Amino acid sequence: MDTDALVDAVEDGELRLHELERHADADTATAARREILSADAGSDLETIGRYSFDAAAAEPNIENMVGAAQIPMGIVGPIAVDGGATAGGVYLPLATTEGALVASVNRGCASIRAAGGATARVLKSAMTRAPVFRVAGVAEASETVGWIRENVDRLAEAAESTTNHGELLDVTPYVVGDNVFLRFGYDTKDAMGMNMATIATEAACEVVESETPAELVALSGNLCSDKKPAAINSIEGRGRTVSADVSIPREIVEEYFGTTPEAIAEANTRKNLVGSAKAGSLGFNAHVANTVAAAFLATGQDIAQVVEGSNAITTADVRDGDLYASLTIASLEVGTVGGGTKLPTQREALDAVGVRGGGDPPGSNADALAEIVTTAALAGELSLLGALASNHLASAHEELGR
Amino acid sequence: MDTDALVDAVEDGELRLHELERHADADTATAARREILSADAGSDLETIGRYSFDAAAAEPNIENMVGAAQIPMGIVGPIAVDGGATAGGVYLPLATTEGALVASVNRGCASIRAAGGATARVLKSAMTRAPVFRVAGVAEASETVGWIRENVDRLAEAAESTTNHGELLDVTPYVVGDNVFLRFGYDTKDAMGMNMATIATEAACEVVESETPAELVALSGNLCSDKKPAAINSIEGRGRTVSADVSIPREIVEEYFGTTPEAIAEANTRKNLVGSAKAGSLGFNAHVANTVAAAFLATGQDIAQVVEGSNAITTADVRDGDLYASLTIASLEVGTVGGGTKLPTQREALDAVGVRGGGDPPGSNADALAEIVTTAALAGELSLLGALASNHLASAHEELGR
Amino acid sequence: MDTDALVDAVEDGELRLHELERHADADTATAARREILSADAGSDLETIGRYSFDAAAAEPNIENMVGAAQIPMGIVGPIAVDGGATAGGVYLPLATTEGALVASVNRGCASIRAAGGATARVLKSAMTRAPVFRVAGVAEASETVGWIRENVDRLAEAAESTTNHGELLDVTPYVVGDNVFLRFGYDTKDAMGMNMATIATEAACEVVESETPAELVALSGNLCSDKKPAAINSIEGRGRTVSADVSIPREIVEEYFGTTPEAIAEANTRKNLVGSAKAGSLGFNAHVANTVAAAFLATGQDIAQVVEGSNAITTADVRDGDLYASLTIASLEVGTVGGGTKLPTQREALDAVGVRGGGDPPGSNADALAEIVTTAALAGELSLLGALASNHLASAHEELGR
Amino acid sequence: MDTDALVDAVEDGELRLHELERHADADTATAARREILSADAGSDLETIGRYSFDAAAAEPNIENMVGAAQIPMGIVGPIAVDGGATAGGVYLPLATTEGALVASVNRGCASIRAAGGATARVLKSAMTRAPVFRVAGVAEASETVGWIRENVDRLAEAAESTTNHGELLDVTPYVVGDNVFLRFGYDTKDAMGMNMATIATEAACEVVESETPAELVALSGNLCSDKKPAAINSIEGRGRTVSADVSIPREIVEEYFGTTPEAIAEANTRKNLVGSAKAGSLGFNAHVANTVAAAFLATGQDIAQVVEGSNAITTADVRDGDLYASLTIASLEVGTVGGGTKLPTQREALDAVGVRGGGDPPGSNADALAEIVTTAALAGELSLLGALASNHLASAHEELGR
Repeated sequence: MDTDALVDAVEDGELRLHELERHADADTATAARREILSADAGSDLETIGRYSFDAAAAEPNIENMVGAAQIPMGIVGPIAVDGGATAGGVYLPLATTEGALVASVNRGCASIRAAGGATARVLKSAMTRAPVFRVAGVAEASETVGWIRENVDRLAEAAESTTNHGELLDVTPYVVGDNVFLRFGYDTKDAMGMNMATIATEAACEVVESETPAELVALSGNLCSDKKPAAINSIEGRGRTVSADVSIPREIVEEYFGTTPEAIAEANTRKNLVGSAKAGSLGFNAHVANTVAAAFLATGQDIAQVVEGSNAITTADVRDGDLYASLTIASLEVGTVGGGTKLPTQREALDAVGVRGGGDPPGSNADALAEIVTTAALAGELSLLGALASNHLASAHEELGR
Repeated sequence: MDTDALVDAVEDGELRLHELERHADADTATAARREILSADAGSDLETIGRYSFDAAAAEPNIENMVGAAQIPMGIVGPIAVDGGATAGGVYLPLATTEGALVASVNRGCASIRAAGGATARVLKSAMTRAPVFRVAGVAEASETVGWIRENVDRLAEAAESTTNHGELLDVTPYVVGDNVFLRFGYDTKDAMGMNMATIATEAACEVVESETPAELVALSGNLCSDKKPAAINSIEGRGRTVSADVSIPREIVEEYFGTTPEAIAEANTRKNLVGSAKAGSLGFNAHVANTVAAAFLATGQDIAQVVEGSNAITTADVRDGDLYASLTIASLEVGTVGGGTKLPTQREALDAVGVRGGGDPPGSNADALAEIVTTAALAGELSLLGALASNHLASAHEELGR
Repeated sequence: MDTDALVDAVEDGELRLHELERHADADTATAARREILSADAGSDLETIGRYSFDAAAAEPNIENMVGAAQIPMGIVGPIAVDGGATAGGVYLPLATTEGALVASVNRGCASIRAAGGATARVLKSAMTRAPVFRVAGVAEASETVGWIRENVDRLAEAAESTTNHGELLDVTPYVVGDNVFLRFGYDTKDAMGMNMATIATEAACEVVESETPAELVALSGNLCSDKKPAAINSIEGRGRTVSADVSIPREIVEEYFGTTPEAIAEANTRKNLVGSAKAGSLGFNAHVANTVAAAFLATGQDIAQVVEGSNAITTADVRDGDLYASLTIASLEVGTVGGGTKLPTQREALDAVGVRGGGDPPGSNADALAEIVTTAALAGELSLLGALASNHLASAHEELGR
Repeated sequence: MDTDALVDAVEDGELRLHELERHADADTATAARREILSADAGSDLETIGRYSFDAAAAEPNIENMVGAAQIPMGIVGPIAVDGGATAGGVYLPLATTEGALVASVNRGCASIRAAGGATARVLKSAMTRAPVFRVAGVAEASETVGWIRENVDRLAEAAESTTNHGELLDVTPYVVGDNVFLRFGYDTKDAMGMNMATIATEAACEVVESETPAELVALSGNLCSDKKPAAINSIEGRGRTVSADVSIPREIVEEYFGTTPEAIAEANTRKNLVGSAKAGSLGFNAHVANTVAAAFLATGQDIAQVVEGSNAITTADVRDGDLYASLTIASLEVGTVGGGTKLPTQREALDAVGVRGGGDPPGSNADALAEIVTTAALAGELSLLGALASNHLASAHEELGR
């Protein structure tokens, strides 16, 4: 069927919107939906329809497709970072609609280069999934937990039978009355790993159900915790826990930010530490989510996981007159294979960073991406802290001038 | 200069990457950067370069532009909701790379329609900005807070002098030793309002600095709290606090989700309430961030504010045999004017929802968008809870069959 | 009946343990219970029975009385503090079983005196109670909240009709789906005020139930939040929000703590700020709960409210070479009338501090107590931070000596 | 010296208040301090001075002693509980100044007995101490963490060399920039174990300092987290993680609480789950801290650890028409040896419960106490929920009567 025929069929109630791909190729189906929606809304979807790839290529990623959202993409860098899985300096594409963000992060990157580069390390790596089981009561909960602690190898066997790459690292039980939660942690190599972890956990749950009195209620019991702002992630990590730091000489702070190490350290303490403390926050940073979101968008990550990416602590201190600053993201969930990484613009962005696909050794591409994003986010922190601190100095200067 | 000339100039060190727009039009500058990055990375940026708008149109939104990220966009709906600012049913575009998300939300929307529609209300609306001031000590802090409480009208006058639309609603002081934080809350009508709030607050801060001993340290002191997972937002709200709910007859639950109201209510209690409690979470929901992120991407919202959009509580109970479910998002930050809403695909998406630009009365378009997004997210909650609950039943059935 | 007769009657099943006061004076009933419990456990309750007051005097405070727990009491001070409601220096009794606590706080008090004294202020004062109501759904929730916002005066009238001293300061509504929470805040003067707030709120709830569709489910809906570790208290306060601070010259830091302002500031940042941040804490302090608990015990406060008393932030910075330190307790719930303050040892302790009974003006005695306790807790913070910092220096010195 | 001589010596500046024990026995020194404080405050300390033990016996627990605080003590029980370390029913002494608390808990205990008893289990047991180290940066942090993970046995050897009973269970590293936190977890048997853990950790820290570049900044880095309201404790536990539950037949609910299982379950969901969620709480319960505090006071526990004792989740559901309720306290820190447990009234209270001193096997006495306290706290939850729910029914009934 062609576009008109599809539109007619939907209007006649013969087809439902999501069924069009059964009767036409993906681009035609997409065009028909656009036409229907345009008519319905009395508006145009012209630019949404001008996507730069075959609709069929997006089938694993979208349903009821009408086209694509286009988010402007800029670049920052080179990002000078000595990491555990990356070295030298690459450019990082950032997609955002927030004016000045790219410029701000880029200014931070320049200051890091001038300072001789940052350091970054992946400190922990585990994608988690935590089903919830129902038991009869606390006696059964105790019994179940006992069995789990003794039989992690059996769970690993079941879990790992579902995956070529994934590896079960640990299973941590938590009990609340007649609820037993098991938090499974996996090494998922270069994949972000949510799907892998879910499938593997499902297999392990069958073992739990057959060997203990526990009955599965939900494959995710929110101790995972996916896409929610949860302390378990900010404390124990999810995906990768990554730190980046840099020491910036005083004169470079002054040149790039127009302020002093002392002023930046003060702004960081009062805003990022004390202010966040008073706010009841899990994020002790200035705007890490901005950089993480823009990098996630550009490189095909799961954008809703920006939530966990904001579980980050920025520190800034004066050391021997210079500025020492660090950023630690507790739960940065990135991958270089699977999911949105296969889409055209996203593939190109990953290629630009040099981390597309599986790494050698496995996991090293995602490690590298994590280190680069964290360093870029550190650059963003420096830049915003510098701007806040210098505005203050500016007004202080004006006052002195009166 | 043409593309080649720009590339040469950068390579010769005569121009820096962000200066190209001074010497060529935006599309040419963008092409030149793409060429440089391609050469540097040894890869291609072809689809990134095939964006469907004039690069100049994106200048308020991006720097160092190389093109656009393209995120597949689908639609869900119609979304049957009786809101305070919306009625009837519209389609909502969602941009995502997560396969099955659109289908899942859409299934929830269908169940809501079958149930006769949802209800939604904006319960509170205030964009906040909270500068941090330094005082000499707690005596000065007390003095400053006293002055603030007496002079909110003076702060309002200064703040509102900077904006045509914004209105200062309240100023809440918080003290930690020699830190005074003032949380300004604004009605920003149809704008998300972060910039408006920042500029207005800056003007108010000048009054504070001239009338009290407090000295501004940072225009944002993290009690705002922008793009961080903070309890102050989940408790007091930021942007819009929105609730949506629906009552779904038992037979519709069974038809659409293949499970019972009891099973969904149980999954919600064990996962979203008890599980989130144990996780130390501010988000007591299944995957609200998914729908919020996809709607934000499609409609030009600030994507990093998905962090606050995940501060949401889902409830599900059995009432007279049917399912009652609600979703309350404490801090949903949306706008229909400004920021990314002006970009081409985003404008079209807002038009498709019927909420582009300023509403009549002011604020009503953003209210409507907030209600629609919240209802879609409720649909997503229902769908995922239904899937979790029915998987469970499935395995229970298998067990019985043995 | 005498003791033996009471014992026989219980053993014969004629009387239940809690009924003994109907048949004998309080001391005799207490002795009989002791005898029964001793026989049951095969152990002795001799010192428990040697309490120093008439059992009848404790009848408002205890049921099933068997005697008294005796907690050793020491004193710290004088506490040199310039407060909003106190001046000069008093001794503060502390009851504790933790060896070294009194000595540690006392050392901090000495350092404060040597530094010329601390400053303290009560920054906010409101006892809260937050009932939860059931509504049909979000439309009714919105309607109810609208009515509340318009009719705070009516609620105040009802609430204040139940009390001679209490004053309703504000009512803040929070909605989660079909739940409406109303957080009532009261000025309860010199009373801690929990009972006053509860009774007053009950009266206000009747108005809410008669004028809106909302139905009361529980007079406390946990947004109060009494005796739970909740961000709403650490952010918005409960009882009194109090800050104390002090500037300690470098040489006094060295003399009293054997370390430097820099070392104390570093320990505070790494432990109390960064460590607490990583721990997902609402308490950014070293051991405020210790001092609060010991002061609460000695002066007849509600000991379970130590939970809220630990919502506290300690700051420590180097200023011009000296140490500036502050402590802000967000939710310190104290009273000098009512509850445990009437008991004999507790009355004497309050007299020793000079704050027993109602103050002039009303509220000033409880304000003074709050300022004194906070200053003592600040002393405890200084002392522990000093000990931690100097241990470190000590080991560093040893290292150098090798 | 006698009392008068001591008083004179202090007034003449020859002795300081804390030095009196060097010149007289403990009771005389205590009396002298009382006299000085009385004169200073112009008030009496007579009942404070009538403590029922030798002052010398309290020397490990108090300094600057003036006497004792006396807190009325009542009893609840028998507590019918089938635990992992306790069986049958004992009475539990509770010391409190809050009228009605003992009666309320006692009512809950009666309902549990009528229902055939509760079940309780200790699910996890580890006392923690978490020092913070300074490293040069994230590269050193990574290196240090790597060493730690490889050398837990060496740390165990050092730690365990300091204790006869304690056993190092695990060491979990956490990194924030140039801060490395190591959370040591110990099995401390029947001791609450804070001191044991501190001393053992100090020894382990020496190994860390000698083998890695990390330098100790503070022996406690707040990831322990002692006496602060921290998610790390509510998630991972500290001291003992204990659950208790009970199934109460409908008619017993009605008889004891004058309400229905449904009403109690609803109050629990709306108040303890949803209300606590909205409050940003770590405590999803009604008033667990009340029972914990009263039991801690009576039995000589560290009263400031009530803070952690409030990290508790109460669940209540209707099962086959009956009420199922559970309470899980994540971090209950109790001991039956050491600390305040040696004091006279506290010893007697522990004897009354049958758990004084070291258990057989070691740890079983503290396990039993933990299970008994948790069951009593569950009783308190039932009783308060019942009261809240029945008040509501009462008013509903009145409404129906109109």
